[in-house]
Amino acid sequence: MPIQRLHTTARYSEAVIHRGTVYLSGQLADDLSGDIRQQTRETLLSIDRMLAEAGSDRSRLLSALIHLRDMADYDGMNEVWDEWLPKGSAPARTTVQALMYSPQVRVEITVVAALPDLSGPNL
Amino acid sequence: MPIQRLHTTARYSEAVIHRGTVYLSGQLADDLSGDIRQQTRETLLSIDRMLAEAGSDRSRLLSALIHLRDMADYDGMNEVWDEWLPKGSAPARTTVQALMYSPQVRVEITVVAALPDLSGPNL
Amino acid sequence: MPIQRLHTTARYSEAVIHRGTVYLSGQLADDLSGDIRQQTRETLLSIDRMLAEAGSDRSRLLSALIHLRDMADYDGMNEVWDEWLPKGSAPARTTVQALMYSPQVRVEITVVAALPDLSGPNL
Repeated sequence: MPIQRLHTTARYSEAVIHRGTVYLSGQLADDLSGDIRQQTRETLLSIDRMLAEAGSDRSRLLSALIHLRDMADYDGMNEVWDEWLPKGSAPARTTVQALMYSPQVRVEITVVAALPDLSGPNL
Repeated sequence: MPIQRLHTTARYSEAVIHRGTVYLSGQLADDLSGDIRQQTRETLLSIDRMLAEAGSDRSRLLSALIHLRDMADYDGMNEVWDEWLPKGSAPARTTVQALMYSPQVRVEITVVAALPDLSGPNL
Repeated sequence: MPIQRLHTTARYSEAVIHRGTVYLSGQLADDLSGDIRQQTRETLLSIDRMLAEAGSDRSRLLSALIHLRDMADYDGMNEVWDEWLPKGSAPARTTVQALMYSPQVRVEITVVAALPDLSGPNL
């Protein structure tokens, strides 16, 4: 089983693909000055982009680990998250409070997704 | 590879199954007024229920990520956890301290499990 | 699909192998008196040992979840981490701040890795 990697630096790859499963690095907003809704929107846009490059999409999420800087942002994050997910495709999810590498980061989301069937049985 | 989901809302699925692997949402106690032992018991009961619905069980855990509100609850959680696990079947485990969505939640456990062989080689 | 486990206690297994994927328990330093560089070195040595026993190695990491006691240790951890990773093989990575079971633990790293192709298509 070959391992495929996307946007690989010395520290991390944005996406790693193995056996039909896509592992993304924790994604966060580009602009960290935004409120929780804005940061969540940018985070999910980033996930969309990475999944697309990996050959998957938001309807094939398997799990999501969500870190919030402050649990007071829970409702704001969920408002954007719930609307983003295609009906009937929500992943297994865990949400906890934790500080990220910069105090400006309000939300970071780490997902695992599946490649579609078209990718064949041997991936 | 089809993705199967159980108890899917607009926000999360309690379980997602793909390629013989079951991803559960973070599980927690129904009654959040209990102490750590009681909350851990209810959390593990919830995991038992979800794994059963997914076609797996506690002897097939692959990994567990345990979030405790207060590391002072570490021994109490472990007491219930150790007794719950069938001999020789413990998963890879990580335990860290973090706040969950409600300050009443003392423990939340996120597991990944395997389907049994009976599920066939193509799942 | 059989599940293989290494160093299994009543509480956890250091490694669990299923379908060509290796799940490690959160690894940490043996000597908790060291600074972040020393603790990171020992943590990665421990990951090397476990992956070797499981039949994998640091060039086949799929994902890493890094918990730091204090985000002030971010640069020190990265210095050792970046040097440890073989060029072009970095995993998907998430780093957040959290307390571990002992206040002396500065870093804990939880990885998922792939077995090499030699392990065959049915693992």
